[in-house]
Amino acid sequence: MTPDPLVASLRQAAQAVPGSKIGQIFEYGRDKPGLIPMWFGESDVPTPDFIKRAAEDALAQGLTKYSDKRGVTPLRDALSEYLSGLYGVTIGEDRIRAAASGMSAIMIALQMLVEPGKNVVFITPLWPNASAATRILGGEVREVQLDVNQHHEHVLDLDKLFAAFDDNTVALFVASPSNPTGWTLREPKMRAILEECRRRGIWVIADEVYARLCYDRHVAPSFLEIADPEDRVIAINSFSKTWCMTGWRLGWAVVPASIGRVFEKVTEFNTSGATTFVQWAGVAAVKGGEPFLEEQKRICQANRDRIQARLGQLPRVRLAKAPASFYAWFSVEGEPDSMALAKRLVDEAGVGLAPGAAFGAGGEGHLRLCFASAPETVERALDRLIPALR
Amino acid sequence: MTPDPLVASLRQAAQAVPGSKIGQIFEYGRDKPGLIPMWFGESDVPTPDFIKRAAEDALAQGLTKYSDKRGVTPLRDALSEYLSGLYGVTIGEDRIRAAASGMSAIMIALQMLVEPGKNVVFITPLWPNASAATRILGGEVREVQLDVNQHHEHVLDLDKLFAAFDDNTVALFVASPSNPTGWTLREPKMRAILEECRRRGIWVIADEVYARLCYDRHVAPSFLEIADPEDRVIAINSFSKTWCMTGWRLGWAVVPASIGRVFEKVTEFNTSGATTFVQWAGVAAVKGGEPFLEEQKRICQANRDRIQARLGQLPRVRLAKAPASFYAWFSVEGEPDSMALAKRLVDEAGVGLAPGAAFGAGGEGHLRLCFASAPETVERALDRLIPALR
Repeated sequence: MTPDPLVASLRQAAQAVPGSKIGQIFEYGRDKPGLIPMWFGESDVPTPDFIKRAAEDALAQGLTKYSDKRGVTPLRDALSEYLSGLYGVTIGEDRIRAAASGMSAIMIALQMLVEPGKNVVFITPLWPNASAATRILGGEVREVQLDVNQHHEHVLDLDKLFAAFDDNTVALFVASPSNPTGWTLREPKMRAILEECRRRGIWVIADEVYARLCYDRHVAPSFLEIADPEDRVIAINSFSKTWCMTGWRLGWAVVPASIGRVFEKVTEFNTSGATTFVQWAGVAAVKGGEPFLEEQKRICQANRDRIQARLGQLPRVRLAKAPASFYAWFSVEGEPDSMALAKRLVDEAGVGLAPGAAFGAGGEGHLRLCFASAPETVERALDRLIPALR
Repeated sequence: MTPDPLVASLRQAAQAVPGSKIGQIFEYGRDKPGLIPMWFGESDVPTPDFIKRAAEDALAQGLTKYSDKRGVTPLRDALSEYLSGLYGVTIGEDRIRAAASGMSAIMIALQMLVEPGKNVVFITPLWPNASAATRILGGEVREVQLDVNQHHEHVLDLDKLFAAFDDNTVALFVASPSNPTGWTLREPKMRAILEECRRRGIWVIADEVYARLCYDRHVAPSFLEIADPEDRVIAINSFSKTWCMTGWRLGWAVVPASIGRVFEKVTEFNTSGATTFVQWAGVAAVKGGEPFLEEQKRICQANRDRIQARLGQLPRVRLAKAPASFYAWFSVEGEPDSMALAKRLVDEAGVGLAPGAAFGAGGEGHLRLCFASAPETVERALDRLIPALR
């Protein structure tokens, strides 16, 4: 196929940026009547009313003008109080920067670090966006695949990870709890990673978006708990998953105070900041969101356990109970092609799952099922999936 | 001063990205009691109620989930109809891409084109963000300064412009009507630019954010009127200035359909799109915004004329009537240092203006005054400025 001449005139890195395979399966199945969509990383629960009301109140008060590029002060203050309480360490508002999504915060962090000749190490399987952003910026993507033990659980081999670092490594990107696997870094390995990154001068970009969807703890372990304020750690978070606010486009980063000014400047030249009245809705979510979150977590945990009990007992299915996240991540014996399997499940079961091939090294041969849905929906999906996966 | 070691560990291009001089004067004067702020490019009129209501309706309908990364279909359709009507040429929805601000659309366009070794040509004086974004991406910034005639009007010398192009020039960035000068490209020169860029394979990134604030026409001339759909033209626009929606963070790009898919992918990895319910407010603005816009334009035109009549008659002030935009751009004889003058005006007049040094080559020695305010506010500001500028 001759490439389109206009596409060919764009940067090679932009032309080559991979399209999302989740998008591909969505396009394949979107028009199928009655399909149960579990392909996106998104709860089917609407944003709670108290958060919507906060946005409406802000609109009524005329908070429709440009905001502080760091994020409005009440949001930085609310996040400072929330995070300090969550982790038992002081996270000052001078370390908090709002962004027009967690994705935007990641892009900004990468722009501060990545250029041609530099590389970023990613622990995979991993949602594809951060490595795609690295590629757009001309950086090299290095993938270090989690091992899988006999219980189908994921295990990080630190030697393998550290062997991927070299003098051109500017950052380690680690999503813990992980999307898609739910793998969660525990404190001893987290400390070892921090030590090695300190020693080598490598930044840690910690994607902690699923920190609150951790089933055996109140919150997943965070680099913010163990790092010094001036360690080379950028912790990324988002309102999307925790408070069912995917469409609101609001995220934040915790950065060392010393680089806060650079982060703010780069924000200015990326998006010029997040929607002003959405930031006020964010204040409401942070301050009043705990009961809602607890309820969502309870539902998700029951869904997870139900999936484990029903799908996990199928002889061909290999599935571990995820300690965190709202995903089931499983492989099916004799089904090496995840896109083919995902398409078959659209056709035969009327259920939309994400193909593992979307998630980098170690992803192929797996499927990701988002169970942030009503329990009845999950049961209905299981009723359809089980005959097709026997 | 020893640079902070963490800042020093960031990319040189990120460290060096210039802070906004508008931000600097804002920080200098923000706490002065009674100051009249005219430094930002923002109307003091709140977003009209019919637009706010559309956002509230969308929230009530639960439109709080991820949206199509191209922008929701009703927004692309509404913009297609709006632009096709405005310019008398068909601009299909397949050419329209929403973004989380005009700035974000510019960053995405630049990421498709700019990498180290490449350069972008900018016609200056110019608001600083697009050149800063180019620098962040490792590209070279080339400035071609507008000439000024004896009436203090800006004139583009095409020979000078074309001489700045070389084989590494990937794009010309042209803001017409210009922020800060109001300079507006007319059709003959626009055609000549398009021809030269066609000949050399250079993309035109046309910032047309002020297109509707054009006082001698219904809309400023646009590259969209004269270009073929598959010309290398990316037209950037925003809801911010036209419909008083600066804090909403919604913009769009018109691109050749053939690169629409790349733009969508790069959007995914920058912000993953604009706030969903804000896009529905955008639909309302586009469909029902004309009466509001006409009224704003009438007020701005009267403000412009009043400023010309009062400020323009001061012997030291050099000011031309801007054909478009909501800015007065002027120099003051004997005042070469725009930041010093801007600070003096904060101190002595209690009026906040943007220093011309913020706007690249040809900016120093000037001030930018945003007159998108109530006429009384403008009169009050003039009453204070005139004694200080005599």
